[in-house]
Amino acid sequence: MKIITISRQFGSGGRELGKRLADHLGWDYYDREIIDQLAAEHSLEPDYVKNVLANHGWHNLQLSYRNSFSHALYDPGIGTQLMIREREILQEIGALGNDCVIIGRDADVILEDRHPFRVFICADIEKRLERCMRHEKKRPEEEQLSERQVLRNIRRIDRNRARTREILTGRMNGDGSTFDLTVNTTGWEIKKLTGALADFALRWFEN
Amino acid sequence: MKIITISRQFGSGGRELGKRLADHLGWDYYDREIIDQLAAEHSLEPDYVKNVLANHGWHNLQLSYRNSFSHALYDPGIGTQLMIREREILQEIGALGNDCVIIGRDADVILEDRHPFRVFICADIEKRLERCMRHEKKRPEEEQLSERQVLRNIRRIDRNRARTREILTGRMNGDGSTFDLTVNTTGWEIKKLTGALADFALRWFEN
Repeated sequence: MKIITISRQFGSGGRELGKRLADHLGWDYYDREIIDQLAAEHSLEPDYVKNVLANHGWHNLQLSYRNSFSHALYDPGIGTQLMIREREILQEIGALGNDCVIIGRDADVILEDRHPFRVFICADIEKRLERCMRHEKKRPEEEQLSERQVLRNIRRIDRNRARTREILTGRMNGDGSTFDLTVNTTGWEIKKLTGALADFALRWFEN
Repeated sequence: MKIITISRQFGSGGRELGKRLADHLGWDYYDREIIDQLAAEHSLEPDYVKNVLANHGWHNLQLSYRNSFSHALYDPGIGTQLMIREREILQEIGALGNDCVIIGRDADVILEDRHPFRVFICADIEKRLERCMRHEKKRPEEEQLSERQVLRNIRRIDRNRARTREILTGRMNGDGSTFDLTVNTTGWEIKKLTGALADFALRWFEN
């Protein structure tokens, strides 16, 4: 069984690349599917589940156990519950034994016993902002964020993800990488990158 | 003209990988060659030049201009002189126009106008320590460093290189990567990695 996990900077094109990679290899693909299953099991809206998980990561866990009353926005009970169930779902995916690509969700750490090929996708901040602004333009005008707001979002999401990672892996940034490969998409056409990355990953598994 | 630059964490196997990569591709290779030329031009010992450059990076430049008297160990005059000449040599290599692999020396930043494929090589700290200790064992016994001393060296060298990079690129670690590809050598046999990396790089140039 081969697992490729794709962690990414917000706005780097990591999700698109992961989807294409799974298609290219003919492997299973997990992204929103995990959120959808969680939502269905708890009779919640997928968007609500997504937000709860994004804002209630491992870096909030201790806090919410200790001090549940300070969380006005989300019920810490449901946040913790969803996180634990998310972990189980990932382990179930691992137990299925199919070759697959998994986007985000710290799947590389949670499934480390299955030795996934751990990819991190990043891009220059200018490119990420550009990509995010293209998405904003597709939303209803009254909901569109300004460039400044989007930039603030990017920084906040990066910070949350990095903190979660440090807690889960016990490694700080300087301590070498916790990924097998980090790809900067800035100079690439995502379609061409897909093939190059697939070949590299397959050689890693053969190695 | 295609240039691949290899930056690396100390002890990650980046130098060996770079040499093999150049051999595999049949390209020119620059590493110690740059130090040797600097040494010859200034009638200095190569090891002395290497030490001066390692301890007198861009992060020391302002300080040495402002406050030359505080540098007891090295003559700041020669340090600055060597750094400027090193930069010129890199530009001369670029002007030659041959496909090549260049190890370290921040060649990716200095030659950025020539759009090099910028690779960073890292490895888990345990593997780096192991690799460095293997090198220590080959030295005369009275010169061998302890594991603790080697670990301290690794941290110091990483810190210096990271600081130099921040100054040269104006980017902090969190700001996406200033490399096109970061490879963790931990799971790889360097020989097999060479072929995978060469193919990936060639596709990047075609892209």
